[in-house]
Amino acid sequence: MKYRDAGVNKKVAQESVKKIRRLARETFSDCVLTDIGGFGALFEIKKKYTEPVLVTSTDGVGTKLEIASMTERYDTTAHDLVNHCVNDILTVGAEPLFFLDYIATPKLNEKMIEEIIIGLSKGCKENNCSLVGGEMAEMPDFYKEKHYDIAGFIVGIVEKKKIPDINAVKPGDILIGLKSNGLHTNGFSLVRKILFGKLKLTVEDYVPEIKNYVGEELLRIHRSYFPLLSTLKERKITKGYAHITGGGLYDNIPRILPHNCSCTINTSAWERPPIFDFLKNNGDIPIEEMYSTFNMGIGMVLIIDKENKQELESYLKSKKEEFHEIGFVKEGERQVEIRF
Amino acid sequence: MKYRDAGVNKKVAQESVKKIRRLARETFSDCVLTDIGGFGALFEIKKKYTEPVLVTSTDGVGTKLEIASMTERYDTTAHDLVNHCVNDILTVGAEPLFFLDYIATPKLNEKMIEEIIIGLSKGCKENNCSLVGGEMAEMPDFYKEKHYDIAGFIVGIVEKKKIPDINAVKPGDILIGLKSNGLHTNGFSLVRKILFGKLKLTVEDYVPEIKNYVGEELLRIHRSYFPLLSTLKERKITKGYAHITGGGLYDNIPRILPHNCSCTINTSAWERPPIFDFLKNNGDIPIEEMYSTFNMGIGMVLIIDKENKQELESYLKSKKEEFHEIGFVKEGERQVEIRF
Repeated sequence: MKYRDAGVNKKVAQESVKKIRRLARETFSDCVLTDIGGFGALFEIKKKYTEPVLVTSTDGVGTKLEIASMTERYDTTAHDLVNHCVNDILTVGAEPLFFLDYIATPKLNEKMIEEIIIGLSKGCKENNCSLVGGEMAEMPDFYKEKHYDIAGFIVGIVEKKKIPDINAVKPGDILIGLKSNGLHTNGFSLVRKILFGKLKLTVEDYVPEIKNYVGEELLRIHRSYFPLLSTLKERKITKGYAHITGGGLYDNIPRILPHNCSCTINTSAWERPPIFDFLKNNGDIPIEEMYSTFNMGIGMVLIIDKENKQELESYLKSKKEEFHEIGFVKEGERQVEIRF
Repeated sequence: MKYRDAGVNKKVAQESVKKIRRLARETFSDCVLTDIGGFGALFEIKKKYTEPVLVTSTDGVGTKLEIASMTERYDTTAHDLVNHCVNDILTVGAEPLFFLDYIATPKLNEKMIEEIIIGLSKGCKENNCSLVGGEMAEMPDFYKEKHYDIAGFIVGIVEKKKIPDINAVKPGDILIGLKSNGLHTNGFSLVRKILFGKLKLTVEDYVPEIKNYVGEELLRIHRSYFPLLSTLKERKITKGYAHITGGGLYDNIPRILPHNCSCTINTSAWERPPIFDFLKNNGDIPIEEMYSTFNMGIGMVLIIDKENKQELESYLKSKKEEFHEIGFVKEGERQVEIRF
């Protein structure tokens, strides 16, 4: 018996590594000292910091991957993964240094791996991040047919004294919401249940209410806020950034509220992309459940002093980004009140 | 319809996070600035470096997880994961800073998550590494029943000029092998095929040839070489470290050979744990296949100058570690010749 007989094909793995190496190199900054394929990847911190703080996060794409499998399109969810991780470390003002991926499949498929790496590399380039390593695991018997999983891991860096101070948040501060690009990567188990289970739609179906094909709508790429916000940091006007992921505005805003503050959100302040109403109506989902599951059109929330409103507004305008004042901070115990 | 109806239970997730937080805190060094549960984890580099190089790696445990599912014991494979990652970055002389995990399951199970975190935290403590974050993904429909996956990400640091220089490796140098603790985490697809497929054994069966129960033998923890080798670094006698993982001695030693060197391994230099013979005989596996799939009793290989043999031997003896000179470097093109 040989290892190949047990369902593990080292040849395919080796071919894939060659392609990965080429695509990954395109993302390397001059701080990367090694090539893909070593035991560990080496990244030199060349910029000088007084008190360097590493910022790290790991994420998956959840069951959004099911849509990738259904459409046999694997690059966009990989791109999602990078952007999701970048947004997470951006919340403390960090700039990305490097990214690693973990890919697990029942059977290695060269085309699929290549598409995943193309997506990762696109995301890394967009965010000045080096794709320095990863792991491909071939796990026969673990996954259901056509299923696979990817996880990402990011490391960024920030000068300690430049970390936004959420303890500076006080009643009267305002919440600015930045638009999402649709569902991003959360709530897909529920989405699938409604669209594919209840409505029996397929990824090829066109839905007039959302003016899009199901597959394309669901695979919209999780937006990275790094290109927009990387130069905002220097102005030091943001007291906190909340990345709106699983748990929606309800669960994510409290992460940047000090213990003596709550906030109120006014949902009339922005328009929701039509996918959210479509899900609500067809899934018969209570409105609170919608807001505690989906981002509802807001992918990132910033808290600033009212005084800095004009400065932020003109900064966002200069970047062609809409400005939405979605709520305010008040006294309380880290509660989020949403007014529908 | 609610999110819970789609198979995702946020309550269980929140309960698990509480337990994780407590266990993870026990691993924190004073460099960790945040608690578990933020968007990103913050780790300050307090030690001063002239040219700090971050070293990073990611790994899974592969289908060894199947044994965890079969025995319903989830801590040891989590411990494996940390040790595997630590060994990888150890190969360039790095000391671990922090670790993150990714856990994906069809259905969150509090007991299982807790056991996994206990294993991770044990591994982290053993290796002076802080468990700063992780992601739990509940993915209904992705995994076959009772299956799950875990991946680990590690970041370590090393002063640039202390990175072992494999270009210093030259013909005449010797290879020192450090004992493994059994199968470690590679080759499990083949192992499962032989033990459970062909021999119809169960994890509860006792096998006289290996003097152990199948489950216990297969779950032996992947050894970390950090406690043994962390103080060896300062002596600067090691030119290269190869962590013997997938691909065995054949694939892993070339990673620390310069382009003009090959090596010869003499398998009579050490005794193999009985599990390897048992697999070979019962699986009818050619000897070359054995050596290119399994570690065959050697988990880490060091290359040193012959002159430093005595120093290393006495260092290892002082640590109660056996010294095995398993081969030598010769001229060639990164080939590994194994003499049986």
